[in-house]
Amino acid sequence: MGHDTFFQYLKDTDAKIKQYFRDSETKKHFRPSHIYDGVLSYLLRPAKRLRPAMMMLSCGCLSGTDKIASILPAAAGIELFHTWTLVHDDIIDNDHMRRGQNTVHVDLMKKGKNDLDLNDEEAEEYGRSIAILTGDVQHGWVVSAFVECALTYDIDPVLVLTLIKHLETEVLDNLIYGEVLDVQFSLQDFPEQITIDEEQVLKMEWLKTGVLYEFAAAAGAMMGKETTDFDDPDVRALAGFASNCGIAFQLQDDILGIVGDEKQLGKPIGSDIREGKKTTIVLQALKNADSVQNNRILSVLGNRSANDGDIAEIISLFNDLGGIEYTRKLASSYLDKALPRLHRIEESKFKDLLYSWADFMINREL
Amino acid sequence: MGHDTFFQYLKDTDAKIKQYFRDSETKKHFRPSHIYDGVLSYLLRPAKRLRPAMMMLSCGCLSGTDKIASILPAAAGIELFHTWTLVHDDIIDNDHMRRGQNTVHVDLMKKGKNDLDLNDEEAEEYGRSIAILTGDVQHGWVVSAFVECALTYDIDPVLVLTLIKHLETEVLDNLIYGEVLDVQFSLQDFPEQITIDEEQVLKMEWLKTGVLYEFAAAAGAMMGKETTDFDDPDVRALAGFASNCGIAFQLQDDILGIVGDEKQLGKPIGSDIREGKKTTIVLQALKNADSVQNNRILSVLGNRSANDGDIAEIISLFNDLGGIEYTRKLASSYLDKALPRLHRIEESKFKDLLYSWADFMINREL
Repeated sequence: MGHDTFFQYLKDTDAKIKQYFRDSETKKHFRPSHIYDGVLSYLLRPAKRLRPAMMMLSCGCLSGTDKIASILPAAAGIELFHTWTLVHDDIIDNDHMRRGQNTVHVDLMKKGKNDLDLNDEEAEEYGRSIAILTGDVQHGWVVSAFVECALTYDIDPVLVLTLIKHLETEVLDNLIYGEVLDVQFSLQDFPEQITIDEEQVLKMEWLKTGVLYEFAAAAGAMMGKETTDFDDPDVRALAGFASNCGIAFQLQDDILGIVGDEKQLGKPIGSDIREGKKTTIVLQALKNADSVQNNRILSVLGNRSANDGDIAEIISLFNDLGGIEYTRKLASSYLDKALPRLHRIEESKFKDLLYSWADFMINREL
Repeated sequence: MGHDTFFQYLKDTDAKIKQYFRDSETKKHFRPSHIYDGVLSYLLRPAKRLRPAMMMLSCGCLSGTDKIASILPAAAGIELFHTWTLVHDDIIDNDHMRRGQNTVHVDLMKKGKNDLDLNDEEAEEYGRSIAILTGDVQHGWVVSAFVECALTYDIDPVLVLTLIKHLETEVLDNLIYGEVLDVQFSLQDFPEQITIDEEQVLKMEWLKTGVLYEFAAAAGAMMGKETTDFDDPDVRALAGFASNCGIAFQLQDDILGIVGDEKQLGKPIGSDIREGKKTTIVLQALKNADSVQNNRILSVLGNRSANDGDIAEIISLFNDLGGIEYTRKLASSYLDKALPRLHRIEESKFKDLLYSWADFMINREL
């Protein structure tokens, strides 16, 4: 299958998901206008819709085309779930850009200034406060979207309840565990060395990304096969595939954060370095660094006022010391774990698209 | 029915709800320990459990005793729902005390200092960040608690889905609408006069409190009567009763915030004045004030550095200018609307307890 078919599938998925958001009755409850705007903001920006695509493809693998229409609300729900975590994470990480535009809390800060005549300090607090509540509203919308699969479409109510419970406990709590570790790691001082090891970094990558991909696949598979059993072998196969792909995705994200194209990514290159993000790129570079290089890297990493020259130098070091190459290979090794999981799944256009999906995880540039 | 019976009922409810939290399997997902501690914090402090009591009594009114055991997870869920909104509101309102102890974000700030060696600024940000995530984990727990009513007990899955959807859209979005209005009102400057009127204040009180009480009653009634119909006359009667009681509760809260006992309330008297909270007490006092009194009130209201003498003076003015008395009568008038709604409900010990519940709304001192 060509890449064109896959990109067309993502584009079609995007159109369906956006249409769902546009048509949703739920929006009428979003008040006042700052909440309404905040909730819709990221959802209507260009996005890859990888999680909804994973859910629908997993469903298709076990059920064929017909069932997919019934799970559209859940596919939109998984995108919503991802989105509310982004809104809260952006507040926590003090990020200013997302998908090429202001983050929600920055947008709301500006609205506070323009619409409510707030001073800078008040506006900053206002932006943060309303963004917290925006994420909360989106979180609620997730649940109601999943419920629709049972109340509006023909998915078994007990299955929907089972999925919602799993999403709102294990999945949510793992994601948040990952986010807390991320916060704690980034606050660690490292005057001479970094004490976090690769295992911890990879665990965090799994918690922050693998877990939700895994759920998207499991939920799609379970709705496709009409089973409430997370341990069904087909469900496990698709979930394991998605989980490993998710880690590869996150490793590629770390690479693009260093050597990617600013415009395509929608966020400034170097922000990962200024934030002091601990990645396998950093760990591997430090492993191969001499003491001068080691000190240079540690002096720039996590330094929010590092200039563009500093950043360019560190990027060079990450390349020269093999950090990028090592992480590319690591991402590949997760795909090697992912792909055999699909062997037991019957051939279909959906399975072909999953192979393209896996390929996209490590060959994407956005 | 004596007050003792009612207080005993609240005490028994508290014991059941706490036991539910203690026994819950869901807790094993709360990691790391700062999240675990944050999530459990408010839940295990002394609390009135009015929302769970309302849900269980409404259920009992339409079903008798047997059914009540099946809805315990939902009753715990409504307490959890209230709790996550408190955690996020406390961050937004910069409150430091809740139920006689530190608020969650203040607790977590201290943990950041003690466990992670953070400096003051880092610790403040850490406390706020982990508290946002703590509320998110609690929000997820709400959903899984409701789901248990169907998967572990005998409540109809479609009914549980209907309730969850309503809670996570209409109810949640109204609560957040109320919180945003509260934030926006408190940021309004008022050099010479307050532009908010009583209708707006009462709307906000309904959004912030009435809505969730109304849902607690409706959900209990629907599970008791085994109906998915929010418009069932018995459901509407109990929901209307609870909604009006909720506004009375909130008005009494405003009164206690001015003339209550600091120790019993668990938060400092005067904080509502220093925060510039717009209540019917304030509006009525200003209405009856001469220009000197008017200026004096407006100079202290919202002034975070007002001293105890200023606060005492404003409390006197609120009394002398009839703000307290007016609000007492207003609260009473909401009870007058609430009580007739119970006429169509059959006599039972549950109905008697609802009468005591209503009485407690305006005669409580904590």
